[in-house]
Amino acid sequence: MTLFRNLPIMNIAMHRFFVPRDAIAFDEVTITGELVHRIGHVLRLRPGNHIVVLDNSGYEYELELTAIGTLRVTAKVVERRPGKGEPNVNIQLCQALIKADKFELVLQKGVELGVREFCPFTSERCVPERPSEVRFERWRAIIREAAEQSRRAVLPILRPVQEFAALCVQSGEPGIVLWEEERSRGISQVLKSLPFKDTGIVRVFVGPEGGFMSSEIDLARQHNIEPVSMGRRILRTETAGLVALSAIMYERGELG
Amino acid sequence: MTLFRNLPIMNIAMHRFFVPRDAIAFDEVTITGELVHRIGHVLRLRPGNHIVVLDNSGYEYELELTAIGTLRVTAKVVERRPGKGEPNVNIQLCQALIKADKFELVLQKGVELGVREFCPFTSERCVPERPSEVRFERWRAIIREAAEQSRRAVLPILRPVQEFAALCVQSGEPGIVLWEEERSRGISQVLKSLPFKDTGIVRVFVGPEGGFMSSEIDLARQHNIEPVSMGRRILRTETAGLVALSAIMYERGELG
Repeated sequence: MTLFRNLPIMNIAMHRFFVPRDAIAFDEVTITGELVHRIGHVLRLRPGNHIVVLDNSGYEYELELTAIGTLRVTAKVVERRPGKGEPNVNIQLCQALIKADKFELVLQKGVELGVREFCPFTSERCVPERPSEVRFERWRAIIREAAEQSRRAVLPILRPVQEFAALCVQSGEPGIVLWEEERSRGISQVLKSLPFKDTGIVRVFVGPEGGFMSSEIDLARQHNIEPVSMGRRILRTETAGLVALSAIMYERGELG
Repeated sequence: MTLFRNLPIMNIAMHRFFVPRDAIAFDEVTITGELVHRIGHVLRLRPGNHIVVLDNSGYEYELELTAIGTLRVTAKVVERRPGKGEPNVNIQLCQALIKADKFELVLQKGVELGVREFCPFTSERCVPERPSEVRFERWRAIIREAAEQSRRAVLPILRPVQEFAALCVQSGEPGIVLWEEERSRGISQVLKSLPFKDTGIVRVFVGPEGGFMSSEIDLARQHNIEPVSMGRRILRTETAGLVALSAIMYERGELG
């Protein structure tokens, strides 16, 4: 079931927050840190209100707030249930560094679309500098917020920036690389033949604004990563990744 | 074939511009207006360089620039050929007014994904004001730029804002409406059963941030517009439309 943001009234639109696993002790939950302010002041929740917290175990906990202080919020667990937001395919989105606003769009939409792991990389034609630690923190916050909003049960992982070559070599999992010069094989043909079921993992490589060098594509091919075309229209790099993710989710029956 | 933006070297990344139909007279083209500055100063093109112009006929014209002045650019037609950027399905994206930056994202990505016609509408839970004429001009510019960049052969149309009810009633073409409360039918099931081939037109309705009222869904249903679910994850309104467009293009074999 899909929900749009800020849905009024519906119970299911309860606020959701990832919390550290040790915040949950049997049926009592103690929330500290920045979240206290969000619950008490930003959202103006009150004792008796229900929220959902997630401890990254795949389960979600529906809570009834019992006390809201300035330093801590306490709540009791009303129900523990399996989260439903995880797709039946484990996607690693390997995204080249692109302009910051585009990269953030890819993170936010990628989380909504079910990406499990983001692997930023640099390649020959990458322009942006490696991100600072401050920017990395910002990216983690974007991922967390998108995961809470889209009802994910597990917080997607953001890996450190790697070189493209190192990332190709890293795992033997099957993958695709979106390539503007690929003529013969389209994404649908390749998706239908990918051995999804063996591992459940698929890697999707998306290049920088300037595209990949053909030597980079050769390297990818050697590591079980197949170049695919995305059709006749030119897609911007940030669009191409999101369309590929949509295609995978559609192919896997994950769009309902 | 997909091309990413700013591809260096490749001939196919030639600059593309929509021009008024009367700019093209037999094998001579005369460009006036704002485009003269872009060609001569922004892009610093020179006589002998090739560009592509489109007159919205579905054809594209490869030109060799012959003279670049301050008020006009002249060129001769090297080749006239059918444009390849139009999909085999005619999508009307009926998008509720949403926050301006989200709406602009939908326009830009919608063009890349092959939307033929944008129909903005207001509905019960719409928050934004109707756009001013200035904003409408900005939206047209976004559409034109995205169409040039993504190699569309025809400029997508932006309709005036209508009421949701009026838009539902307007045509008998089949359609879908993305609805967060739909439980039984997912987009893939409905897409596979849509009578695409009869008309080639499909209407896609996407609601505002607050979603549709169930009375609005009832009205849609009466007009051949089927509510569909988009899966278990919550998609923001601007994401939902783009994912639905991707699914349609995938289903139609338009992603290669």
